[in-house]
Amino acid sequence: MGEAQDFEQRLKEVADRVTVALDQLIPPAGGPEADLMRAMRHAALANGKRMRPFFLLETGAMFDAPEKTLLRAAAALECVHCYSLVHDDLPCMDDDDFRRGQPTVHKAFDEATAVLAGDALLTLAFKILASSETHDDASVRALLIERLADASGARGMVGGQMIDMLESDSPRDLNTITRMQRLKTGALISYATEAAAIIGRAREAERNALAGFSNDLGLAYQIADDLLDATGDEDAVGKPLRTDDAAGKANFVTLLGIDGARERVSILAAQAKEHLAIFREKAHILLQSVDFVLDRTH
Amino acid sequence: MGEAQDFEQRLKEVADRVTVALDQLIPPAGGPEADLMRAMRHAALANGKRMRPFFLLETGAMFDAPEKTLLRAAAALECVHCYSLVHDDLPCMDDDDFRRGQPTVHKAFDEATAVLAGDALLTLAFKILASSETHDDASVRALLIERLADASGARGMVGGQMIDMLESDSPRDLNTITRMQRLKTGALISYATEAAAIIGRAREAERNALAGFSNDLGLAYQIADDLLDATGDEDAVGKPLRTDDAAGKANFVTLLGIDGARERVSILAAQAKEHLAIFREKAHILLQSVDFVLDRTH
Repeated sequence: MGEAQDFEQRLKEVADRVTVALDQLIPPAGGPEADLMRAMRHAALANGKRMRPFFLLETGAMFDAPEKTLLRAAAALECVHCYSLVHDDLPCMDDDDFRRGQPTVHKAFDEATAVLAGDALLTLAFKILASSETHDDASVRALLIERLADASGARGMVGGQMIDMLESDSPRDLNTITRMQRLKTGALISYATEAAAIIGRAREAERNALAGFSNDLGLAYQIADDLLDATGDEDAVGKPLRTDDAAGKANFVTLLGIDGARERVSILAAQAKEHLAIFREKAHILLQSVDFVLDRTH
Repeated sequence: MGEAQDFEQRLKEVADRVTVALDQLIPPAGGPEADLMRAMRHAALANGKRMRPFFLLETGAMFDAPEKTLLRAAAALECVHCYSLVHDDLPCMDDDDFRRGQPTVHKAFDEATAVLAGDALLTLAFKILASSETHDDASVRALLIERLADASGARGMVGGQMIDMLESDSPRDLNTITRMQRLKTGALISYATEAAAIIGRAREAERNALAGFSNDLGLAYQIADDLLDATGDEDAVGKPLRTDDAAGKANFVTLLGIDGARERVSILAAQAKEHLAIFREKAHILLQSVDFVLDRTH
């Protein structure tokens, strides 16, 4: 097998471990409210790439951090990511019918169930982190929770989504879009490496290196996503593409052009890798992941 | 001043302290996402009775628990309560236009902003509790978070709301409604006294007494709410009444009748007070609060 296949295999193994963990952590369907749990499972157990958990787990591995803590933190992070997708897909938000190759939660169930399933997934994320099963040291758990709330709240992911919701007739320039994406998707990607650094008790220089890495990676990831939206195949991606174009919304590709966006991804990828120099050969997997993540076809 | 005026004064003072705390804890409006913070403030700073914070603070006072911890826990609890109101009021849920005498968040702003403001308030609740400013001991913070997630998640408040959303043509009997209300409103009311017991390092017998007290009180409160819905004055209450009747939904009053519901409230109130005997004269305020809370006109 070549390096790319090895890597893809590893990505799939990590994704499966996260899915198994989520399956165990989400309450089983039962009682008259069973559709709530079914909707949570529909949202969280679908075939996702689990990129955020992957970065958390692989970063944590560099520090020989405890596996169980990393896996529970990764599951909590994925709960937050999945809840945000459920709410973002709602008719009053992006109004999307398909996600990960299946109907969105409000299509498979109804809108009220989608709102509540998102709420319950967000709540579950904090419950997972707060549990003494996650880590013996409560100060580690509290810090993981505080930073996740920062990354996903009004001044993180939700704030970014709010900016994305603003009327499309308000002009969006590169600065606005960069800030929006840093909040909307960058904050949670940064949390992946930050959580691993907290669990792995990383030194300050290492934490700073990871912050720089994830910052560049997160932005590159979003530009790659816009490139995929502009040039990708709908069947492979599993959701409708060219939606920004249809809505008249500016994104990195409409502002930079396809070639300009590709160049920007290359520069950010090189920068991201440079940040990892401090970890030497231990960063092998993370270095590989940069190219893989940014050269996406789905 | 009579006892009732004294008590009303105290309730108002507590409500004001909670509102001031929330005002400081919710991020100020700024940036292109400013409407998100405005919507959070609209939801959380409106003129609420702050019953849950009141029970948390007054229970904590019995244990001489640290004021700052109690106030931050009360603010977090109120964030969760307010987020649930914002989401419950959405068109796909109860579709309410007025709340606390003002337009609901999706009416004052729009639906997307209401979804996001609710999400951000929920996230903020956990951020508040996780912060080292709340308590020196991280294990206290982690326990407060874990129990709040339990009380408000799929097997607590959100699960109860899910049951409430089920088609009104599925028959609702007293057992179903009692379980629904125990989850939907009872769990957070119980959290109020439980959080105070955690912060105040209550003994097991005291914790059990408080669990019994809040369980009876929560159910009585909901029956009193249904009585208010059936017999109250819309102007005094600040929102439309008789909505269950209009939707053909069974509630405690439609099932027990007005006299039967009043009798049930009396029995539960007496039971709730008996649980407090263990605290002797220290329970003075909580004892008073039972009558006051259940004899509502608004």
